[in-house]
Amino acid sequence: MKNTYGESVSLTLFGESHGPAVGAVIDGLAPGIPVDNDFIRAQLTKRRPSGRISTSRVEDDEFEILSGVFNGFTTGTPIAISIPNKNVRSADYSDVSRLARPGHADYTAHLKYHGFEDFRGGGHFSGRLTAAVVAAGAIFLSALKAKGIAVGTHIKACAGIPDRAFSDIPSEIEALNAMNFAVLDRETASVMTAKIEAAAKDGDSVGGILETAVIGFPAGVGEPFFGSLESKLSAALFSIPAVKGVQFGDGFALSGLTGSLSNDPLEVSGGKIITKTNRNGGINGGISNGMPIIFSTAIKPTPSIFKQQDTVDYLKNENAVLSLKGRHDPAIVHRARVVQDSITALVLCDELAQRYGTDTLMP
Amino acid sequence: MKNTYGESVSLTLFGESHGPAVGAVIDGLAPGIPVDNDFIRAQLTKRRPSGRISTSRVEDDEFEILSGVFNGFTTGTPIAISIPNKNVRSADYSDVSRLARPGHADYTAHLKYHGFEDFRGGGHFSGRLTAAVVAAGAIFLSALKAKGIAVGTHIKACAGIPDRAFSDIPSEIEALNAMNFAVLDRETASVMTAKIEAAAKDGDSVGGILETAVIGFPAGVGEPFFGSLESKLSAALFSIPAVKGVQFGDGFALSGLTGSLSNDPLEVSGGKIITKTNRNGGINGGISNGMPIIFSTAIKPTPSIFKQQDTVDYLKNENAVLSLKGRHDPAIVHRARVVQDSITALVLCDELAQRYGTDTLMP
Amino acid sequence: MKNTYGESVSLTLFGESHGPAVGAVIDGLAPGIPVDNDFIRAQLTKRRPSGRISTSRVEDDEFEILSGVFNGFTTGTPIAISIPNKNVRSADYSDVSRLARPGHADYTAHLKYHGFEDFRGGGHFSGRLTAAVVAAGAIFLSALKAKGIAVGTHIKACAGIPDRAFSDIPSEIEALNAMNFAVLDRETASVMTAKIEAAAKDGDSVGGILETAVIGFPAGVGEPFFGSLESKLSAALFSIPAVKGVQFGDGFALSGLTGSLSNDPLEVSGGKIITKTNRNGGINGGISNGMPIIFSTAIKPTPSIFKQQDTVDYLKNENAVLSLKGRHDPAIVHRARVVQDSITALVLCDELAQRYGTDTLMP
Amino acid sequence: MKNTYGESVSLTLFGESHGPAVGAVIDGLAPGIPVDNDFIRAQLTKRRPSGRISTSRVEDDEFEILSGVFNGFTTGTPIAISIPNKNVRSADYSDVSRLARPGHADYTAHLKYHGFEDFRGGGHFSGRLTAAVVAAGAIFLSALKAKGIAVGTHIKACAGIPDRAFSDIPSEIEALNAMNFAVLDRETASVMTAKIEAAAKDGDSVGGILETAVIGFPAGVGEPFFGSLESKLSAALFSIPAVKGVQFGDGFALSGLTGSLSNDPLEVSGGKIITKTNRNGGINGGISNGMPIIFSTAIKPTPSIFKQQDTVDYLKNENAVLSLKGRHDPAIVHRARVVQDSITALVLCDELAQRYGTDTLMP
Repeated sequence: MKNTYGESVSLTLFGESHGPAVGAVIDGLAPGIPVDNDFIRAQLTKRRPSGRISTSRVEDDEFEILSGVFNGFTTGTPIAISIPNKNVRSADYSDVSRLARPGHADYTAHLKYHGFEDFRGGGHFSGRLTAAVVAAGAIFLSALKAKGIAVGTHIKACAGIPDRAFSDIPSEIEALNAMNFAVLDRETASVMTAKIEAAAKDGDSVGGILETAVIGFPAGVGEPFFGSLESKLSAALFSIPAVKGVQFGDGFALSGLTGSLSNDPLEVSGGKIITKTNRNGGINGGISNGMPIIFSTAIKPTPSIFKQQDTVDYLKNENAVLSLKGRHDPAIVHRARVVQDSITALVLCDELAQRYGTDTLMP
Repeated sequence: MKNTYGESVSLTLFGESHGPAVGAVIDGLAPGIPVDNDFIRAQLTKRRPSGRISTSRVEDDEFEILSGVFNGFTTGTPIAISIPNKNVRSADYSDVSRLARPGHADYTAHLKYHGFEDFRGGGHFSGRLTAAVVAAGAIFLSALKAKGIAVGTHIKACAGIPDRAFSDIPSEIEALNAMNFAVLDRETASVMTAKIEAAAKDGDSVGGILETAVIGFPAGVGEPFFGSLESKLSAALFSIPAVKGVQFGDGFALSGLTGSLSNDPLEVSGGKIITKTNRNGGINGGISNGMPIIFSTAIKPTPSIFKQQDTVDYLKNENAVLSLKGRHDPAIVHRARVVQDSITALVLCDELAQRYGTDTLMP
Repeated sequence: MKNTYGESVSLTLFGESHGPAVGAVIDGLAPGIPVDNDFIRAQLTKRRPSGRISTSRVEDDEFEILSGVFNGFTTGTPIAISIPNKNVRSADYSDVSRLARPGHADYTAHLKYHGFEDFRGGGHFSGRLTAAVVAAGAIFLSALKAKGIAVGTHIKACAGIPDRAFSDIPSEIEALNAMNFAVLDRETASVMTAKIEAAAKDGDSVGGILETAVIGFPAGVGEPFFGSLESKLSAALFSIPAVKGVQFGDGFALSGLTGSLSNDPLEVSGGKIITKTNRNGGINGGISNGMPIIFSTAIKPTPSIFKQQDTVDYLKNENAVLSLKGRHDPAIVHRARVVQDSITALVLCDELAQRYGTDTLMP
Repeated sequence: MKNTYGESVSLTLFGESHGPAVGAVIDGLAPGIPVDNDFIRAQLTKRRPSGRISTSRVEDDEFEILSGVFNGFTTGTPIAISIPNKNVRSADYSDVSRLARPGHADYTAHLKYHGFEDFRGGGHFSGRLTAAVVAAGAIFLSALKAKGIAVGTHIKACAGIPDRAFSDIPSEIEALNAMNFAVLDRETASVMTAKIEAAAKDGDSVGGILETAVIGFPAGVGEPFFGSLESKLSAALFSIPAVKGVQFGDGFALSGLTGSLSNDPLEVSGGKIITKTNRNGGINGGISNGMPIIFSTAIKPTPSIFKQQDTVDYLKNENAVLSLKGRHDPAIVHRARVVQDSITALVLCDELAQRYGTDTLMP
């Protein structure tokens, strides 16, 4: 499978940045889940660029549900969602010269598709496809919510500026999900946006780290080895353009500790078995342990920058200098977090359906 | 799929730490690949514990190939490998009380398998299964080598002590593959082992970071989104017990840079398109760009420590104190690197077979 | 995977009979394949009902390609096709009583989807979805044709009237593909249509057998056991609504022969190894042998009939009598053959891409 | 996947006729299922050749369970089963000439594996591998039995001699499962065996039809289109060597009926919805309807016959005449039925686990 994730609940992506539409097909999701178009719209809004910290290409992201929803509820059969591309400026493109944008997939797509790729605006590799992920994700998040499972992501770092750590996860998830620029320490937001604006002014871009917390997910879900929860989540998370790292719990920081510090001691608390710390991010041996599931991703700086860059013309096989024009994001970390929530919800829905059956997500 | 990785070339794992055998079934590997039992043995030796920095349970790891090899070559049909467990001390286990070892899968396995799991020595969740990964991996590595593709891993950090970075990858891969304790800066080895021994003396354990480099892998391999090379590699790498993070190229460090620094500028060099730097680890948009593929994993400290730990008896649902006895590794990072090479080779074989067909790995 | 077929080249179906659209997403198909909208239209025309032997619900089947085609060629990324439903008569449906149409999926869909299914016109189980299969199939058939592989299907039997057997397959495939009612013996066509019309007049319906021949498919493609060509083809063919049997070569007739008659003796002919007969349908041990691939399917009579039928009201759990109204096909065997060609082409494209790599279908 | 079937519960096969062992790995089966070695042995006995109607190569089929069973119960982790080959006569084989046995996979395996295949006794394509299917199948059948699901197969026809139809399925399944030569009309057995013996005497072989009935399987299981129960069962059944046709319910006979005869009318009986007839074999729209699931397979005559046959030497690319020596079955239909039961049980376990979750088969 190439553009499809999932075994019991699956998501298939399609579309190009400058083609007629981007979209997704959900399959295997239980029947009877209410589909709230307003919530889908609200989620798409979080992903949509706005202000000086984003590109000025703004799509209205009007989506059409082509199948799988009847009388406002999922039917259990495939849900196809299409989001037409409207605000497209497909200038004339040269057929004899083409410059690879460094950090983008232009050149690798060319190698793979032998020149038949739709290269306009990154084509199928464009972040534009994440609009489809977010629309589908809204349905997954609704399904989880009805089961008492909440997902939230904060910008753990942006342009080197750190946010504070999670402390009271349930309320923080709720707060984060109401924000457009999702940070735990609200004062960081202005420092981060200032950094993004400064980079934008400089014709440059910045990256960041996104940390996600999941609460309410049952213990005992996941598989050993290749089917581990970490394997599943990371496979899906690395499909988000710009993600270059994934870690669970304290992740790379664990590698410098001793076992006596990194092991999470267990205890019985209120009759329930928990761990006193959660450095392993709620997963042991690939299986959920009932603690919050915590992971973070490294988001590299947006590769589209206005600074002049050395590159090649891959049709002519010649060195070249690139000066990008057009509309670009100086950062996408604040927009990507709703994509990360959506991808997370997809994986969790699939895991629950595998573990407890195809009806398990019925409200 | 649970204990199986791969679409065109696949690996299925089986076994328990204290059961009759651990093993693996390879399917889809091309016919005609020479199977060198001595190389398999040599690889198993790298994984085998030795000296004061490892457990004293030493298995001879005599493997049997039950199928798929004929006259010394792969046949193209499934290769089953069994490695009997011999040095097993299955003491009497209590049926009325059982203490979860913190950081292990004891409790999560119990939740998932409802008490039917073979809990002895971690059962199916034991690092013992990586012996099967390494035996299979030797065959994958041989197949890649015949195609000019080399894989090597160094201990980038252990107990907080860093190794130096890759500089001349081809010769360094060769050197690393000849070492038992694989570091680029040979002097670091003694510092790291001293740290491991100190932790052992203290009844504690340490972790580390493993960094892998792949050279000779063709450009234009991989898929967008869910089928990205990063998705595939990370899914497989997170199946190695103790891995809690995976990053490509500069990974998390990229998140603090600006785009003008993190984008790898391209140039034509000797008629070939390359990037001047390789901060993205040889992958753009999920597809290989022809540069070395570089990634690293966070290996948490071995959870089995001799220090007394707070835990629970999960049969009785009571708090308890655990004092481990037996034979345990104060570090596994030095043993895990051959597992990482093996897993990497599996993924690359699968990617090549998907991209170029089932015969592509024939020498 | 539920509504998805294929590993290297895949097809995902979506839609309901009375919803906004039916459609499909193709993934993994090679770049550079010309997409001929006229051919897609011509194929859809073969599936479209016409005359007294078909339903009077006629859709214009105007399709939109939402992605994956650029400048008239496949890009290599997902191709989404949507076919809006236009000629829909969604009468008021009762919420308190609902009669299962015998032979349809009404009742089983209700059991599976707990009442949330879109039951109008059979919903997702409607033969209407095969329009999407045919549109996608046109692209698969074009890809195969460029590789010298031709697929053709004749109505081997309809309402008990047999067609003659294949004799000169290459010219016969060409002739069949130009027909609307595909038979080898043109005189049978009028006898068969008379039978269909008689059944229609009687408020009843008839079934038939569809036999497909494939030429030009390379030898040595397929896998042993679960990956056999027969397994793959049958799995896909049984997804066509109304197919209740699949056989390869002489199929069930082989079971009554002796080995000396059913074995196809081999010979060298013109330097090439062939079989003198082809009772096994071009497949031995699950792998193509270079002879034409031949198989046939049993198409049951269309379940929608105007004769009064005993059934149940599955909302009330009561016996009932059903008198169907509306627009229905007295036979679908003549329309289904282009679906069978399409499904066959999907499977063969997937097999070739798995065997020879993702670029193999580039012209 | 090549030698693997299944999504939630899977089976992977390995081995060659003359290699060290044949075997299987089961994954995803629920924990807590009792593993009854005597029942596995009894099932293997049904598959084992005996008397004049079978080959004289008799293996004792002593199996070893290498993993996944602990204290007599499944653990939920992979179950590896190995059955060593003992009674092997691997005579010297020529390296310069090799005759394709007509009807076998010798030549197609050679095309696919380029001469590296283990050709001795058919290698990986040998019916010997079905011993591993039967051993695994015994565990699947036990799991189903504990859930009230029974599977039984009769020889519906052998050498053209028909058995009578099912009439009282529950008691007939029980009776069939106690027989070595499984027919409903016991008097047919002697007629059939006489036919087999006559063919054997003549150096020839015969085929047959196997019909399977399943009772107790819940309604509402299966998926539309590519995930239909018919798709799943047929894909698995066509992996049995010698199967050339699969039909559900009345199958090909349905194609000659009218809709008023082939539709199964529904009725409420004892408060439960059933169909008055079961011509569709318990499946509508790919989903079980609660009636017995009925299907049959066409088993071609055993291709190994002693009559002289025209063939080719595929190493020399020359015509040749083949006179087989050795030990061969004049019929395998009576041995194959326990394979068919086993394959059926595999598919049903997988379907149930997908539908109701991974614990659903716990007793």
